[in-house]
Amino acid sequence: MGFRRKLRETMARNGSLLCVGLDPDPRQMPAGMGIAEFNRAIIDATRDLVCAYKPNLAFYEAEGLEGLRALEETLACIPPDIPVIGDGKRGDIGNTARKYAHALFDSFGFDAATVSPYLGFDSVEPFISYVKKETFLLCRTSNPSAKDLQDIDGRPLYEHVAFKALEWNVHGNIGLVMGATYPQELARIRQICPEMNLLVPGVGSQGGDLEEVVKRGSDVQGAGVIINVARAILYASNGPDFAAAARTAASALRDEMNEHRPRT
Amino acid sequence: MGFRRKLRETMARNGSLLCVGLDPDPRQMPAGMGIAEFNRAIIDATRDLVCAYKPNLAFYEAEGLEGLRALEETLACIPPDIPVIGDGKRGDIGNTARKYAHALFDSFGFDAATVSPYLGFDSVEPFISYVKKETFLLCRTSNPSAKDLQDIDGRPLYEHVAFKALEWNVHGNIGLVMGATYPQELARIRQICPEMNLLVPGVGSQGGDLEEVVKRGSDVQGAGVIINVARAILYASNGPDFAAAARTAASALRDEMNEHRPRT
Repeated sequence: MGFRRKLRETMARNGSLLCVGLDPDPRQMPAGMGIAEFNRAIIDATRDLVCAYKPNLAFYEAEGLEGLRALEETLACIPPDIPVIGDGKRGDIGNTARKYAHALFDSFGFDAATVSPYLGFDSVEPFISYVKKETFLLCRTSNPSAKDLQDIDGRPLYEHVAFKALEWNVHGNIGLVMGATYPQELARIRQICPEMNLLVPGVGSQGGDLEEVVKRGSDVQGAGVIINVARAILYASNGPDFAAAARTAASALRDEMNEHRPRT
Repeated sequence: MGFRRKLRETMARNGSLLCVGLDPDPRQMPAGMGIAEFNRAIIDATRDLVCAYKPNLAFYEAEGLEGLRALEETLACIPPDIPVIGDGKRGDIGNTARKYAHALFDSFGFDAATVSPYLGFDSVEPFISYVKKETFLLCRTSNPSAKDLQDIDGRPLYEHVAFKALEWNVHGNIGLVMGATYPQELARIRQICPEMNLLVPGVGSQGGDLEEVVKRGSDVQGAGVIINVARAILYASNGPDFAAAARTAASALRDEMNEHRPRT
């Protein structure tokens, strides 16, 4: 099943815009627990509350081969009807981008991937040629330094990326990463790309406002926005009750998001 | 030993600006040969002809965990006095960039890394805080679509990246990736950043002109430019003589580069 249908069905079934970021940090996890074991518990505690999961590859690569093995085990624990976004922010010339697309979509089997647009279309094309997979281009990122490149003179670069994304979207499977910490930019991009899926990090530890994100980011159906939260769920507790605490946090976030969704 | 000193000493010892890109593609390698075995033969055949090696991580990730194990074996085969650039073009928010920097510099032990500047300074800072390592920011990439984002109105984005790199270079360990396929841009960036190391892909299969690269890219000492070639060396032959053919190609490329170096 393609990403878009899987997302739509999971959003409806779980009544949720919440994406849980599976970013395991051993220093913040319960002492002595392995990454795969930790993730399995988080997934079991939240699987009926989410619209997607998003492992950020950095957290696995930082643990070497063991970490990547744990990522494979984690992916095997996620129910196959929940879409999984591989967050690697890759981007390279065509020949090499094909290798990354193969690694993410074929080897790991992710339903979607995040991709940096810096190298332009031929670096994006190998990803979007997987027509059932979704490719989220970095547009406005959530970090304070986002302005360093994304806000240069003339039309801001992130708007330029959004217009390019419209132009490149021949397969209808491009989405955009839009940081929750920039609500005005989010509204502007929703205006430029009314039908595109927006993957929104930056709520929670990074301080983005949930109400703003839902109101400005959702599409006319009250969907089309995937709100990622990692640390505020994964590390709600670092004791033996971490999974129950994660569930409580995920449930509260889902409900708070839903309060702000336009009724359809 | 830090990257810059290692590079300077290897450039002098081997009389070479040539960086061999270790981008193993099973479809182009001798039939039935493993990645680590192939790389070991290429390294043995070229170790006295290069100034650096540059594995592109995509080629290893595409082979799953086996590929990453082969990367570790490959790194163990490279003589410790030759600098190794980990080409992953990573870039993420600070918290996550720290994980990538740890993976590349501590776990894999690369001497340098390529980093995408799209997210701005706080995504670069975790890399450059490894003061003995070098961080090559993508500036002007070598692919045809480079213009999609890097040439937008006003000051081109790649120039903006170069000025930002000067501003961010508090530890003196930032370099720039400049595609050989854009010689005028290369000359302009050498003017803006007279002392920065330039990592130059795009000679060989991508068609960049070697003479232009050496003349426009090298610094006043006739150094400061690291010219990466992968496919034209690795796949000079795909028969049992591949290593000897790789050596012949590497030797010819090194000598051709040296012909164009300014005498100092």
